Amino acid sequence: VSVTQSVTVAVDVMSGDHGAAVGVPAACAVARANPEVHLTLVGRQADLLRELGSNAPLNLSCLYATEVVTMQDHPRDALRRKKDSSMRRSIDLVKSGEAQACVSAGNTGALIATAHFVLKMLPGAERPAIVSAIPSRTGHTFMLDLGANTTCTPEQLCQFAIMGSVLAADIIGNEKPRVGLLNIGEEDIKGHEAVQAAHQLIGARALNYQGFVEGDDIFSGDVDVVVTDGFTGNVALKAMEGLAHLISGVMREEFTVNVWRKMGAVAAAPALKALKTRLDPRRYNGASLVGLNGVVIKSHGGADRFAFERAIEIAILEARKGVPSQIAERLQS
Amino acid sequence: VSVTQSVTVAVDVMSGDHGAAVGVPAACAVARANPEVHLTLVGRQADLLRELGSNAPLNLSCLYATEVVTMQDHPRDALRRKKDSSMRRSIDLVKSGEAQACVSAGNTGALIATAHFVLKMLPGAERPAIVSAIPSRTGHTFMLDLGANTTCTPEQLCQFAIMGSVLAADIIGNEKPRVGLLNIGEEDIKGHEAVQAAHQLIGARALNYQGFVEGDDIFSGDVDVVVTDGFTGNVALKAMEGLAHLISGVMREEFTVNVWRKMGAVAAAPALKALKTRLDPRRYNGASLVGLNGVVIKSHGGADRFAFERAIEIAILEARKGVPSQIAERLQS
Repeated sequence: VSVTQSVTVAVDVMSGDHGAAVGVPAACAVARANPEVHLTLVGRQADLLRELGSNAPLNLSCLYATEVVTMQDHPRDALRRKKDSSMRRSIDLVKSGEAQACVSAGNTGALIATAHFVLKMLPGAERPAIVSAIPSRTGHTFMLDLGANTTCTPEQLCQFAIMGSVLAADIIGNEKPRVGLLNIGEEDIKGHEAVQAAHQLIGARALNYQGFVEGDDIFSGDVDVVVTDGFTGNVALKAMEGLAHLISGVMREEFTVNVWRKMGAVAAAPALKALKTRLDPRRYNGASLVGLNGVVIKSHGGADRFAFERAIEIAILEARKGVPSQIAERLQS
Repeated sequence: VSVTQSVTVAVDVMSGDHGAAVGVPAACAVARANPEVHLTLVGRQADLLRELGSNAPLNLSCLYATEVVTMQDHPRDALRRKKDSSMRRSIDLVKSGEAQACVSAGNTGALIATAHFVLKMLPGAERPAIVSAIPSRTGHTFMLDLGANTTCTPEQLCQFAIMGSVLAADIIGNEKPRVGLLNIGEEDIKGHEAVQAAHQLIGARALNYQGFVEGDDIFSGDVDVVVTDGFTGNVALKAMEGLAHLISGVMREEFTVNVWRKMGAVAAAPALKALKTRLDPRRYNGASLVGLNGVVIKSHGGADRFAFERAIEIAILEARKGVPSQIAERLQS
């Protein structure tokens, strides 16, 4: 696969918390930085025209959609009743082949339900999974499922291992990413039945499987892919977000207690800034829905322009690499 | 319950990673600081005599045990074959009423199996759960189960809610601690069947139940008790430990990149020290095994003297409050 192959990415610029005010400038910046890529912005005509102004890059076009899926919409209602939403139209472009990937910052449940309905599963994949890169000591770790599936069968966990392995290989450029299965002890005897059965299934596949890992191995750099069910994965992800928020809040408090502390913060600013940059969650924005017959990237709802740009870039990368067809091939081998 | 009521706490000083070299000095320090409390140190005679020296406090006695449960011992083997271990003898003292609580830094599985076998469950409690305080924005949150039970029935999750509520009330002195049930969305429709059924059961009990919470609420201060199964709880706990370790590692790197950064670290030292103190996991050492007919505190295996002292102090507090009889009363009401 040539990395310069031309691709079109559909960008739902409406569904995030900040709507077109963030989505359009982010898409314009990515379009300018990647002149060989075509972006199709999907959203309400008035919002698109207002945000684009008169200076839009030439490798960018618009598709008007009259509706927007809100964070309050039930996934079923979004699917059945908002057929002209920016989210649905973006996914439709992937289905028709007019785009090779789409990005949305909208309602996760609605995005999964719509993408599942429109694009269908790849042969051999039963359920879509949400996978995202998480910073680790040595780079990053791809973790899945982060919340698409509350419970998972051993077969589904094994499919996640394969899907995560393909994605990690494409993104980090390591052909044999190390895969771990999340458990509450590294001994083979621990864990519930689904995890035990998945351990056997994954071990029998042609993966660089390292066996069971524990929660702290998400960050240790000992594995590149961490597989778990969507309940555990979502709780762990949110707990990490909560802890990071707590730590940054306590730091802010402690560095502003008095004038001496504030002076200390000035002196420490380069180190604190470097720390913030390295662990900035915006750099990791853009979760992939894998297992579908098409590339669908979920941006954080509250993403700012910088974060939204990262999500579009992941869509470009996965479209170029042809992640879905690679996954289909590996699932069936 | 009078807070000055005299109690005896059995301290297994052998089973931690550092053995009597940490356990004995920690127990001596706590004994000196709490002259009204009696501590019974349990361990090998040679180790106890070596570490105690000639200056032992008077409110401290020794019970010699010839064996030590190792981190490699299978729980079943520890229970069946090491009947003269420091862990077993400490729990036996609680069973016989010679102590009102015990502390061990040993093998978690062996501690649970032995305590379960010797002390038995309280009426109305099916399974022991591990509960620990976790720092939050406003104080701390009590979370359970942290790993004693891989899967839990709705009834068990409801029992955990009651047990956690009693413990939180005793430790934070709030008679109506707010209880949340961990889920992957706050909507009532989300989550797997066990969580849905537990939501109904907990809602029907006389608890200050706030409904579903998400992973980030462990730290938000919005609830005092977070209830979940031992698989999810353990993964979340280990993930938080891994993230905290990653952040402190990156901070250390960034503050030592060059001489300017090191000077920044010196200027920022008071704030960095305050940050470290506030989030120091050693301050939160000492997890409670609840649901048993007796107080059993699990110290982190790698606890240093400061951390081990905290675990002994929690044992004293729970013994004084009579946590097990309070839990029994609430479970049956």
